[in-house]
Amino acid sequence: MSVIAPSLFFQVLKSDPQSQARTGVIKTAHSEIETPVFMPVGTRGTVKALTQEMLETLDARIILGNTYHLFLRPGHQLIAELGGLHEFISWPRSLLTDSGGFQVFSLGDLRKIKEEGVEFRSHLDGSKQFISPEVSMQIQHALGSDIVMAFDECTPYPATPEEAKKSLELTTRWALRSRAEFNRLKSAGEPPALPAFLFGIIQGSVYHDLRKQSLEQLLEIGFEGYAIGGLSVGEEKHMMYDTTEFIAPLMPKDKPRYLMGVGTPEDLVESVARGVDMFDCVMPTRNARNGQVFTSQGKLNVRNAKYAKDTKPLDEKCACAACQRYTRAYIRHLYLNDEILASILCSYHNIAFYLDLMRQIRQAIALGEFAIFRASFLAGLQENPRSATE
Amino acid sequence: MSVIAPSLFFQVLKSDPQSQARTGVIKTAHSEIETPVFMPVGTRGTVKALTQEMLETLDARIILGNTYHLFLRPGHQLIAELGGLHEFISWPRSLLTDSGGFQVFSLGDLRKIKEEGVEFRSHLDGSKQFISPEVSMQIQHALGSDIVMAFDECTPYPATPEEAKKSLELTTRWALRSRAEFNRLKSAGEPPALPAFLFGIIQGSVYHDLRKQSLEQLLEIGFEGYAIGGLSVGEEKHMMYDTTEFIAPLMPKDKPRYLMGVGTPEDLVESVARGVDMFDCVMPTRNARNGQVFTSQGKLNVRNAKYAKDTKPLDEKCACAACQRYTRAYIRHLYLNDEILASILCSYHNIAFYLDLMRQIRQAIALGEFAIFRASFLAGLQENPRSATE
Repeated sequence: MSVIAPSLFFQVLKSDPQSQARTGVIKTAHSEIETPVFMPVGTRGTVKALTQEMLETLDARIILGNTYHLFLRPGHQLIAELGGLHEFISWPRSLLTDSGGFQVFSLGDLRKIKEEGVEFRSHLDGSKQFISPEVSMQIQHALGSDIVMAFDECTPYPATPEEAKKSLELTTRWALRSRAEFNRLKSAGEPPALPAFLFGIIQGSVYHDLRKQSLEQLLEIGFEGYAIGGLSVGEEKHMMYDTTEFIAPLMPKDKPRYLMGVGTPEDLVESVARGVDMFDCVMPTRNARNGQVFTSQGKLNVRNAKYAKDTKPLDEKCACAACQRYTRAYIRHLYLNDEILASILCSYHNIAFYLDLMRQIRQAIALGEFAIFRASFLAGLQENPRSATE
Repeated sequence: MSVIAPSLFFQVLKSDPQSQARTGVIKTAHSEIETPVFMPVGTRGTVKALTQEMLETLDARIILGNTYHLFLRPGHQLIAELGGLHEFISWPRSLLTDSGGFQVFSLGDLRKIKEEGVEFRSHLDGSKQFISPEVSMQIQHALGSDIVMAFDECTPYPATPEEAKKSLELTTRWALRSRAEFNRLKSAGEPPALPAFLFGIIQGSVYHDLRKQSLEQLLEIGFEGYAIGGLSVGEEKHMMYDTTEFIAPLMPKDKPRYLMGVGTPEDLVESVARGVDMFDCVMPTRNARNGQVFTSQGKLNVRNAKYAKDTKPLDEKCACAACQRYTRAYIRHLYLNDEILASILCSYHNIAFYLDLMRQIRQAIALGEFAIFRASFLAGLQENPRSATE
């Protein structure tokens, strides 16, 4: 049922012989994206504290937008009227939008899940709203996303096997409706006419058999890519790794595999080893605004008093513009004074760190040295006492 | 008593035949500064919401730092230990620091003015502090400022002639002590060894005779430049213009004239016409963070609902990177969502607008067309209804 030949959308370039890791390339109408890729999160059409120019300098090829937030404000109709999300935010490269599901379910008492869709009250003004698979597709179509996510129920954690099964089956029925509405919108030929690609989201909590059932049902419908949803929602880390390790190799080899909402640098390396191609997470930008930066030697919090006279850059091994110019002492001073520049510099560095990590991962796989890279990366984190203490 | 030959520091290049306007150049150890110049304010060692790279792109040659703020946090000793303020904030061009006087006097009940200096309590932690002319010089010396301001009492407005006279005479005595301590620090040969220049500050409220008395007393002491203080502190605009118009032409022609804390774009044009060479003001960056931007057609507040679908740039005549890329509709959206990028883009544009205005002023004077420029600039502001309504 796919409207675009998947072979043009995604290609595996090199597979690691000792793990499930692989490099590849995703081609959209807006950019070529080398995988494994980390996608910075631009919830409301801005990756917090960064300009689009900075993201281009860092060579980000794709960023995320959030359907729920943009739907409520400024509204997808307004964005469509102004030429779509790329045009609205002046981002000429690729955009992936989530389905709105995750945010809606996070509303707790403010929402009511029905077969038809989800009724909820806006967190902004309390107004009554409704999102269904069809509405989610219509919003993402109006936004002009390159990669569209099917509307799913993000199963809460913990969930009993019965709850998880019931939830994944709803996700399957919504995935079928998402696929149908996506195809209808595309074949209707209304603008935006550029190709877009629809991803299904695998649920099933931490239960292998349910994850397998969810994947099989999505495969029957057919998507251009598959995402692992419902992880990084409170379960222990080993369960996330275990679930990914189980399900990723069962996902189609010729389609991108996307682990949603993950994670730490270590999570990225470990999940690539388990076969994942795509990641997104608010951690690098959110932590940056709290003074926490990621470095080749683990995390550090630049607000710490011990950096008061430290003239080293945030990360001595980093080539980003923030590390080339500014010291820990200065950035700490900016934090203590609530200066915006602190958020700018730490966000810039953290995104640089994440994108650079993915480049190193891709290069290691391409050179057949991923196992060595993985071991040395993890050893580097463990050797440094900072990651444990800050 | 000046330690540097003033002729190397400042040179008038061209004088406007129809007004007091003139172009010139200030040379410090860190940059050449074409005048008339607007100096962006970097209170705590950062021009709010901008990176140093952005200021360089905008061709800012000099920025301000605030003695009071840097004295309290992180402390001038720490900054000196790390190589001075240029090094600490990574700003290789010129720095002017105020004397701390203005901020200390703004503390109201928290401070006590004596002949020796000012006792006050820190707004950060309530700790007891003291700044005298000598301390102010020592702080600014430790910071390594290129242009140092004498410690003055900023006469409040309104003030009776008696109050203003008493205040300016204290300022004169403090100016003498500032000069002596500045010279002592310089001749002691302690680092920083780079040349610095000391400016005296003229007080006297809105009284011509007192302004003249203040200037004459400062001239006897001798400074590398002279500033007009105690304006833009609540008096009506015509009084500010009148006072500047009276005093500026009496100030030495071969030394820079600095009007402190001023002002709007109109104020800059009008004060240049009255003979002023240097300006500083928080307005472009503070207003930017509230969504108010300066344009060739007057002010606009981008939060206004009428810009919701406006795909024009902030200022259609502006060549800055923000105006080349982003629309009013997008920036409005960013504001309504409290996104940091809104402050970045509006601050960038406003500083670009101010620096570009000064370039236009300098060019008009150089071409002998300042009168035409002034008339057409003011007409442009008045023709546009926005400036009146927003």
